[in-house]
Amino acid sequence: MKKLINGTDTVVADALRGMAAAHPGLRVDIENRIVFRASGPRPGKVGLVSGGGSGHEPLHGGFVGYGMLDAACPGEVFTSPVPDQMIEATKGVDGGAGVLHIVKNYTGDVLNFQMAAELCEDEGVEVTSVLINDDVAVQDSLYTAGRRGTGATLFVEKIAGALAESGAPLSEVAQIATDVNARSRSFGVALSACTVPAAGKPTFELNDNEIELGIGIHGEPGRTRAPHAEAREIVRIAMDAINDDMPLSGETLVMVNGMGGTPLLEQYIVFAEVAAYLAEKGATPARSLVGNYVTSLEMQGFSVTVCRLTDELARLWDAPVETPGLRWGR
Amino acid sequence: MKKLINGTDTVVADALRGMAAAHPGLRVDIENRIVFRASGPRPGKVGLVSGGGSGHEPLHGGFVGYGMLDAACPGEVFTSPVPDQMIEATKGVDGGAGVLHIVKNYTGDVLNFQMAAELCEDEGVEVTSVLINDDVAVQDSLYTAGRRGTGATLFVEKIAGALAESGAPLSEVAQIATDVNARSRSFGVALSACTVPAAGKPTFELNDNEIELGIGIHGEPGRTRAPHAEAREIVRIAMDAINDDMPLSGETLVMVNGMGGTPLLEQYIVFAEVAAYLAEKGATPARSLVGNYVTSLEMQGFSVTVCRLTDELARLWDAPVETPGLRWGR
Repeated sequence: MKKLINGTDTVVADALRGMAAAHPGLRVDIENRIVFRASGPRPGKVGLVSGGGSGHEPLHGGFVGYGMLDAACPGEVFTSPVPDQMIEATKGVDGGAGVLHIVKNYTGDVLNFQMAAELCEDEGVEVTSVLINDDVAVQDSLYTAGRRGTGATLFVEKIAGALAESGAPLSEVAQIATDVNARSRSFGVALSACTVPAAGKPTFELNDNEIELGIGIHGEPGRTRAPHAEAREIVRIAMDAINDDMPLSGETLVMVNGMGGTPLLEQYIVFAEVAAYLAEKGATPARSLVGNYVTSLEMQGFSVTVCRLTDELARLWDAPVETPGLRWGR
Repeated sequence: MKKLINGTDTVVADALRGMAAAHPGLRVDIENRIVFRASGPRPGKVGLVSGGGSGHEPLHGGFVGYGMLDAACPGEVFTSPVPDQMIEATKGVDGGAGVLHIVKNYTGDVLNFQMAAELCEDEGVEVTSVLINDDVAVQDSLYTAGRRGTGATLFVEKIAGALAESGAPLSEVAQIATDVNARSRSFGVALSACTVPAAGKPTFELNDNEIELGIGIHGEPGRTRAPHAEAREIVRIAMDAINDDMPLSGETLVMVNGMGGTPLLEQYIVFAEVAAYLAEKGATPARSLVGNYVTSLEMQGFSVTVCRLTDELARLWDAPVETPGLRWGR
């Protein structure tokens, strides 16, 4: 295992020190492992909190800032954060208008966020949770009952974040988060595994001419293994899986996401095939992201996430955002 | 070799199709392999053109847009673009105020840009070239006489781009580009090699506990191979090399750049050590970038680039930019 770390037990703390040094717009509580906006809670604004295992950067800490999250709770690599982090984060971002928890559907995350929400409610902070489960690959899997939450998390954080910034109440912010999740689907493909530092060996093995279709963001098994193929064939399998679940049409928001070890050059090749597929179905990529946004350490592969847009969702997507990982228009 | 491609001979064209589909702010001439701003040349504005081998994305095509480049010429992977591309690009961005060529110091790029500049001058387009040679690792190397150009290219494109956007004349834009290069130093480290699609095998081999110090962005040899070590030790070697060449002090612009296959989590760990080193020297990371900006396909490793800021350079760095790879503040 060759990694740029100081030791397997300081990975998350050392990375948080780096975030703190690089981004003066963030206030990073290294001891308690919470990434806050430096500006603190704004009275009357709904607070947005997310979190999950580390190793998926920029998700979630990189999406803290104006127009997106108010705080993120990073767990150990590929390990759920604990309720204490979530409680501190929730209380720390409450501006009196309540807090939305954005929770990817992994059993540990769900249970811990639920416990934190209950304890915060007991202390007088109103909390609503939205569960992200956009991955069409498999029903139930390692770590998850039901579908896994992947790329749509970014869409929810951005769009609900924009609505919260405009001063909307918690019920509306929660509703749009639910809507975005319901209108979004993802599918991931791995060309290689990744290695969790503390484990020291790859999470799974693929041979030289094999890919995993429907991979999870922790390297959980997908639908099947298949021989490696041309990008257009692999993209067709991914897009068919999405289209079978949610027929594609009209204007869409599309993300081709690198898993961490895939050259951007290849991600653009994948995007070209995704756009061609959408055109076949009479859909268009009205808004696009291509890059590493929801990663799995150094895994090679990609995921594609599609959200069927409405005018309102497009407008909120376009609204200003200022975070380390997503920034425009302010 | 497992890559997300349709074939080794269509890699660049397919990726350009993806860029065209993803970024409506760009006009991508796929046949001639030029990435332009969709808005075309602005009369009276100095045009900025760069280019180089593909495989370093988002450099350069991802830095075309408001406040940065007017056009980029991608060559084949790790191969210089040809003069015809540069000539078309230069003529295509000329708004009557002349054109700046930003050229990384690799022999092929230098010769081809020089030929293109001469031919454009013959046709009445004023061209000035600035050579980027910020890499302190080695003097003369594979592909290069003198020092190689790496991360400072992004700094030059951003800062000179901002000045050009403000309406400054070619002489001033060229001067600030020269200044930024002169005030910037880089050093790269590889943990693994990368594979050029057309070659089908890694550009070099490193064993399981070995790293290459001073790596070039095409996998050219650096200063030495060394046993793998903690991030803080590796960063100290890189920063010492920079500091020995250009003593660090005051406010700096710092980029920790992933080579393409390095998790962002690890890049932040590297940034933490870079910030600690700067503090020792009485310098501060007044502006920071952490991410994949000047990549080498799927290579694992990082480079660090430091530019000693002035108030003017900081102001131009902060100016609005709107490109696929760098975007803020508009």
